[in-house]
Amino acid sequence: MNLDIAVLAVGDELLNGEIPDTNTATIGRLLNAGGYRLGEGRTVPDQEETIALALRDLAARHQVVVVTGGLGPTRDDLTARAAARAFDLQLTINDEALTLIRAFFQEHDLEMDPRNEKQALLPQQCLVLPNLRGTAPGFLLEQKQSLLLFFPGVPVEMEAMVEAELLPRLDALSGGHPPLCERILKIFGLSEPKTESLLDGLTLPSGVNIGFGVDFPLVHLKLRATGRAAEDLLDQAEVSVQRRLGDFIVARGRETLPQTVARLLSASGLTLSLAESCTGGLVAAWLTDIPGASAFLDRGAVTYSNQSKNDWLGVSKRMLHDQGAVSETCARAMATGLRQSTRTDITIAVTGIAGPDGGTPDKPVGTVFIALSANDAEQAKGYRFSGSRDQIRKLSACMALEWIRRYLVERGQPKR
Amino acid sequence: MNLDIAVLAVGDELLNGEIPDTNTATIGRLLNAGGYRLGEGRTVPDQEETIALALRDLAARHQVVVVTGGLGPTRDDLTARAAARAFDLQLTINDEALTLIRAFFQEHDLEMDPRNEKQALLPQQCLVLPNLRGTAPGFLLEQKQSLLLFFPGVPVEMEAMVEAELLPRLDALSGGHPPLCERILKIFGLSEPKTESLLDGLTLPSGVNIGFGVDFPLVHLKLRATGRAAEDLLDQAEVSVQRRLGDFIVARGRETLPQTVARLLSASGLTLSLAESCTGGLVAAWLTDIPGASAFLDRGAVTYSNQSKNDWLGVSKRMLHDQGAVSETCARAMATGLRQSTRTDITIAVTGIAGPDGGTPDKPVGTVFIALSANDAEQAKGYRFSGSRDQIRKLSACMALEWIRRYLVERGQPKR
Repeated sequence: MNLDIAVLAVGDELLNGEIPDTNTATIGRLLNAGGYRLGEGRTVPDQEETIALALRDLAARHQVVVVTGGLGPTRDDLTARAAARAFDLQLTINDEALTLIRAFFQEHDLEMDPRNEKQALLPQQCLVLPNLRGTAPGFLLEQKQSLLLFFPGVPVEMEAMVEAELLPRLDALSGGHPPLCERILKIFGLSEPKTESLLDGLTLPSGVNIGFGVDFPLVHLKLRATGRAAEDLLDQAEVSVQRRLGDFIVARGRETLPQTVARLLSASGLTLSLAESCTGGLVAAWLTDIPGASAFLDRGAVTYSNQSKNDWLGVSKRMLHDQGAVSETCARAMATGLRQSTRTDITIAVTGIAGPDGGTPDKPVGTVFIALSANDAEQAKGYRFSGSRDQIRKLSACMALEWIRRYLVERGQPKR
Repeated sequence: MNLDIAVLAVGDELLNGEIPDTNTATIGRLLNAGGYRLGEGRTVPDQEETIALALRDLAARHQVVVVTGGLGPTRDDLTARAAARAFDLQLTINDEALTLIRAFFQEHDLEMDPRNEKQALLPQQCLVLPNLRGTAPGFLLEQKQSLLLFFPGVPVEMEAMVEAELLPRLDALSGGHPPLCERILKIFGLSEPKTESLLDGLTLPSGVNIGFGVDFPLVHLKLRATGRAAEDLLDQAEVSVQRRLGDFIVARGRETLPQTVARLLSASGLTLSLAESCTGGLVAAWLTDIPGASAFLDRGAVTYSNQSKNDWLGVSKRMLHDQGAVSETCARAMATGLRQSTRTDITIAVTGIAGPDGGTPDKPVGTVFIALSANDAEQAKGYRFSGSRDQIRKLSACMALEWIRRYLVERGQPKR
């Protein structure tokens, strides 16, 4: 049974540009991993009438509606009130919810603000859903054709409740048969049309659909199939696509490129050091975001000044003067210098001009040099990336990670 | 005239958790800055029928509908087709659009893939909107009650077209009177209910509304007013709020905390060096994301290994052995050691346990020490943060930036 599921995200801050809504994507990812598919997302401001209208509309169109946000203690948190209005229910202090809220404050040794009692004011007939990570309990309403689940908007709280309260209910509703399987192949170095043209004439097993998406600078290729044989069909399709795209596939499934590199590094037992100029610590920040990075990362240098390139990377002042900090020679010197002093197994160096200023006719904005130094390899190469400062930094950081990945793969690490 | 505006974001990748939709937030931000307000956001998958339904529905409810995504060259880009279906229009090759696409490839010296011709297949009667940053032209449809603008989903292309094609049309429609003014005060160190309770009993000028939002770890407090006197009313309200919240306000408006710190540093003429352990380059990456960071940032050290703390920061091995790398003494030594060797004006050091592993009863996950060293100041302090690895890293990085901000403010920088 293919459930029809929608998300309603509530909050002014999602519509006025303060913060992007990440909850819809998180719910989509968790649903996808569970074999379900999100059919629609909506975002509405903190206005009781607007929320109520959206709730009625979505409940009439979808079997399951997941609502996030607006359960907080402040006066612009109006979701429970709007739910009561949408379905003609009374609002009352829910004793179970109040007990849960009080217990949360006691357990965390925090003083309870009287405002938090408001979070127990819920529509009658609702089922309270405990929130283990925060003060706002969720709740569930069953309407004629639709099940509505209300979760707090705080991402970590919402995510825990999707796992604990939503997915098991979907499995019960759908009879436990995940209706859709999906594989994601993440491609770096090819544009979306170029990727599609490389796949021209490829025969995929019948029943496998192909889709594309962009998560800059990566292109995501999605293979989808349904039914009992879905996983087998996707295995076959993946092999065919792999033959065409080969090394452009840099990550798979939920794994990001930094996670892939971290996994390969951990498995290799090799140590890494980083010398970053234009990426300014982005490669280090991405890698250290992953638990266990200390197993392979010795250190990273963010060397903005020439003096720092001289002090920490041993790049000679003469060379910096003659060739400039943005040069293949400098990238190479940064990598070999840092590896020699740190005795790490692999060093990656990145130097370039991220812009918007600092470009010259000779070395325009987007000029980036990358170098890798290892026991058995010394490589350096120049690129000319285009885009904004943010894009050039991300392209450079991804390229640095891709250099590490290829080095490890070619050295004989397992490909997946 | 208060325009009623909606955004429709199209793409499977926005609903299956591959990438969050940032376009709605970007459009919301640009609208807000122009004095407009986004009333609703919707996200639908790459399905012709579903897109067409949403278009009809939104056009009936809103005066302006901004559509992003699905204009690309691959076969799952279906927005133009869906628009034709929604409003009973023919799809034809639009000569103007085709000319624009060909010109883009020529200008960028790129070979045009025959697939890109598909991007000129647009509904009849549409007005073509040029895309200066990419291959997919946008288009505009005027329906009975509603103006629909179709933009590509690639964020930089979309953003440029909102500026060039959407905002001027809104100004024309609304007669040039921005209907809503908003101030955002960004608060660090207080929870949302704590912020609200500190404002209890505060009398704001009549006509000023207050709202709250969270962009972890910051709380956003929003003051809003309409009409000709709006800016004056907001000035008064801001002064009152400032009196209550004082130093908890770390940034204002569209400026982020890193941008505030970068601006203050640039104005001060002082130089900065960073010693990051648990934040792993996050502070450096945030600061170097800002154009012009090279004016104040000398270097950053991501010192994961003890050896690197010894080599680059001069932290003695004996101290690392006796006190451990996660200690106030170590944080202090990291800051003073790096400042001495680099002769920078300010050094910030962060060391801690981000988790999920590595905690002990004595120093649980979330234990973080920060130290600042400057000509006229030496400070160090321990914190016990709670949350996920990602949250602890972000809290630590924000706290480090906040230390720099307070140092500069107390030293006599202008407060804004």
